[in-house]
Amino acid sequence: MEAIREGDSVLVYIDEKRKFIIRVEPGKLLGTDKGFIKHDDLIGKPHGSVVETSMGVKAYLYRPLRQDFYSGLKRVTQVIHPKDAALMIYLSGIGPGSRVGEAGVGSGFLTIAIASIIGDSGVLYGFDISDEALSTTSENLEKAGLRHRVVLTRRDVREGVDVDNLDSFFLDIPDPWSALEKIVHSLKDSATILVYVPTVNQVEKTVLAMRNLRVFGDIHVYELLLRELSVEEGAVRPHSRMIGHTGYIVFGRKLSKTTTS
Amino acid sequence: MEAIREGDSVLVYIDEKRKFIIRVEPGKLLGTDKGFIKHDDLIGKPHGSVVETSMGVKAYLYRPLRQDFYSGLKRVTQVIHPKDAALMIYLSGIGPGSRVGEAGVGSGFLTIAIASIIGDSGVLYGFDISDEALSTTSENLEKAGLRHRVVLTRRDVREGVDVDNLDSFFLDIPDPWSALEKIVHSLKDSATILVYVPTVNQVEKTVLAMRNLRVFGDIHVYELLLRELSVEEGAVRPHSRMIGHTGYIVFGRKLSKTTTS
Amino acid sequence: MEAIREGDSVLVYIDEKRKFIIRVEPGKLLGTDKGFIKHDDLIGKPHGSVVETSMGVKAYLYRPLRQDFYSGLKRVTQVIHPKDAALMIYLSGIGPGSRVGEAGVGSGFLTIAIASIIGDSGVLYGFDISDEALSTTSENLEKAGLRHRVVLTRRDVREGVDVDNLDSFFLDIPDPWSALEKIVHSLKDSATILVYVPTVNQVEKTVLAMRNLRVFGDIHVYELLLRELSVEEGAVRPHSRMIGHTGYIVFGRKLSKTTTS
Amino acid sequence: MEAIREGDSVLVYIDEKRKFIIRVEPGKLLGTDKGFIKHDDLIGKPHGSVVETSMGVKAYLYRPLRQDFYSGLKRVTQVIHPKDAALMIYLSGIGPGSRVGEAGVGSGFLTIAIASIIGDSGVLYGFDISDEALSTTSENLEKAGLRHRVVLTRRDVREGVDVDNLDSFFLDIPDPWSALEKIVHSLKDSATILVYVPTVNQVEKTVLAMRNLRVFGDIHVYELLLRELSVEEGAVRPHSRMIGHTGYIVFGRKLSKTTTS
Repeated sequence: MEAIREGDSVLVYIDEKRKFIIRVEPGKLLGTDKGFIKHDDLIGKPHGSVVETSMGVKAYLYRPLRQDFYSGLKRVTQVIHPKDAALMIYLSGIGPGSRVGEAGVGSGFLTIAIASIIGDSGVLYGFDISDEALSTTSENLEKAGLRHRVVLTRRDVREGVDVDNLDSFFLDIPDPWSALEKIVHSLKDSATILVYVPTVNQVEKTVLAMRNLRVFGDIHVYELLLRELSVEEGAVRPHSRMIGHTGYIVFGRKLSKTTTS
Repeated sequence: MEAIREGDSVLVYIDEKRKFIIRVEPGKLLGTDKGFIKHDDLIGKPHGSVVETSMGVKAYLYRPLRQDFYSGLKRVTQVIHPKDAALMIYLSGIGPGSRVGEAGVGSGFLTIAIASIIGDSGVLYGFDISDEALSTTSENLEKAGLRHRVVLTRRDVREGVDVDNLDSFFLDIPDPWSALEKIVHSLKDSATILVYVPTVNQVEKTVLAMRNLRVFGDIHVYELLLRELSVEEGAVRPHSRMIGHTGYIVFGRKLSKTTTS
Repeated sequence: MEAIREGDSVLVYIDEKRKFIIRVEPGKLLGTDKGFIKHDDLIGKPHGSVVETSMGVKAYLYRPLRQDFYSGLKRVTQVIHPKDAALMIYLSGIGPGSRVGEAGVGSGFLTIAIASIIGDSGVLYGFDISDEALSTTSENLEKAGLRHRVVLTRRDVREGVDVDNLDSFFLDIPDPWSALEKIVHSLKDSATILVYVPTVNQVEKTVLAMRNLRVFGDIHVYELLLRELSVEEGAVRPHSRMIGHTGYIVFGRKLSKTTTS
Repeated sequence: MEAIREGDSVLVYIDEKRKFIIRVEPGKLLGTDKGFIKHDDLIGKPHGSVVETSMGVKAYLYRPLRQDFYSGLKRVTQVIHPKDAALMIYLSGIGPGSRVGEAGVGSGFLTIAIASIIGDSGVLYGFDISDEALSTTSENLEKAGLRHRVVLTRRDVREGVDVDNLDSFFLDIPDPWSALEKIVHSLKDSATILVYVPTVNQVEKTVLAMRNLRVFGDIHVYELLLRELSVEEGAVRPHSRMIGHTGYIVFGRKLSKTTTS
């Protein structure tokens, strides 16, 4: 049994619409429309245990996972959906020790997931053109305890980046085709690029630009549909509502310069 | 530029149906129906470069990524699809240093992906009831350079496991509901469980067992549909064929014993 | 140009959430939260024209189609989604002159679609156990001008039906497997059966019953996912939200008795 | 019991890959790789019965339905998938007595489905620029017993059509946006148009053209994904393979001229 301590991050889960990530501070209260919870009452409780709000409603206490930040996050932008973050990170090949680029960081949801994978020996260079995005991302990384793995810089990557030897670059900007040529030098040979765009027209422009530049190979475009199943004994069925579309993922691998000469 | 050296693993990519993962050994040949390639000719070439087979067909040389093992792998079983491996690992919360359980390992495809994420400071305990599965997994892990992160044991997890303090357990066996009670003690409080099953009936039994045991909370069942887009200028459309179904992912978090008493 | 006349049914379309099917009656008003429209103002206008509400909001006047009744209908039950009604009717093989059975009729949405296909030379026998369902269906059929093609009867089809020589039977009841044996005699040899059920467990029971009875062949189970695309110049993408699940369609063809003896 | 007679169309169903639509002619043989069947042996058998091929393999005899022509058809082109034909016909509003246009007819699969719905009091005007398409469609309509309901004309509809008062027009040509202005006069006020295109770029051009012309309202774009379920007792799951994409359906209703002035 590992008990919750002051300073720990905790996911307080009441129901699917009431999930809160807090840092435990003595004397503080978490207020919800289902009643409040005293932070002091969490200290010493094991993770995975249950408490009651002041209104007698059950609240589960879990260690926060990267997906929990999807709803728990302060947002300044639309964030990349967990299903897409999962596939992008998986395909990128990154792991402990990886050097990674990301632009724009937006609210930092994908940033948190990448930072959780690269470990303390890795580094993530996060770029954005908006000060508000950078400060929100910074704040969210703090909450996740991952701020130290990320270098945040205010920069328009379409004008180039001054990092190198990256294992992967994640691009979530409106016109990724404008940035490809400016960031490709930052990647190792055979490194991966992952581009996220919401419309089919952006997919077309991105893929054609990647082909024309002749610096990326193995180009693929993916889209994920996520269904959730509802299970009652003798009555299993998919949920009635689902997310119809989030975005498309464009994948490529950097070709060596010798290839294209 | 980082050159390919003797002993390196290389993905030799000719086309979507001809992808080979080799370990470079002087004197060896890679034979394909599009001609052969001498390993010696790869040495000194940068990753991300192109060579030609003896029949003049282009072959791209990439650093192998975890997804490349999907088609490059020696198989004794159906393996978990990359889209599902991606989501399972993401949801599990594992990262550098994690302690993880997996049963059964099958051919080791998910094993490779998990091992790639936990780093050298993590450990993966892999179980299977089949000697052939264990030796195939061992062989595939060697090929991926990840064998040292995994402890492989011949064991039917429905009879219990002798590991503890795990951050996550991945279950890919025909009757996961029979194993839940026997493996739950191996998990930390608030640790995750990820179950993979192909049929709806198995989903129902698994979820009902998880609820009845009262040791898992936040239970969800997911299914992913992956579409790939074909891009030609002025003619973008999804591929005509897609994988219609692989399996369902059941997720849960371990509740503390204090919760259920 | 064909003008709207007294007694005509008209779809008054303001926007996706404001669609009304009315029968034009002099002196009447259609009231909406976007203002009212006088029926008198519609008379003499061509179908496909536009009027304005009292608040100056545009309203399109269309001839009502079967799908328009989906939102325009008075409902006592969940109704079958248009995408499913479309596939069921198509697969059923029915056309002008067909003799058809349906149970239960619910609110009459599928009833309207079937009746629109069989013409005045066909007949639809509609059954339900609820008086409210029957009267609502009757009312909705009136609105659609199709009441004369349908014979509505209060009856639990699990206790048998007294019709025969049907070309197709549509079953939308909670336990269709209980009715199969009782209705099969009403079908012509090689006639079709279409069963609609929301859960996978009902699919399983229905298909196993159909196989065990040995009176249906060519059994298939279908599920449709409908996506809608949003089109702006240079920005085409699927809608963000979609319906995740409605129901499953089980199809079969009646085998001749000689087949099963 | 209704027996098969000389001249009847019969679907001979051996398995999912062996379905044949024949017209019964005394003295003829149906040859398959699972043995042959004498037409004479079918005469007098009820629809829905089973015979055996010369190799002892079971063959089911069904009345052919419109969907059976999908695999049973002689083809000169890609044909519209049954799921899409079903939705297009449903949405079109056509029924017994309708006047309909279709271009191009291709191999006649959608033509058969439309003709099966409009009855003997309806008429379908089918256009194509290819003589081969027209003769194949004619032949296939004969096989379905529906030839008399269709007027086939060799014509490029982008140059206009000389029919009028249509209830609906189905467009399946590569550049439907080039034909819209030329065919719109053939439609009644409030009549429907259904366009079928395989790529997203064609969807964009079609919808923008429909909006610019200001003669169509209620414009929607749909895509259907069809899953099939495999049912074994205790093991229900979607099929492993599915069709990933066929085409998009663009729907609209003709606005009255008074609307657009």
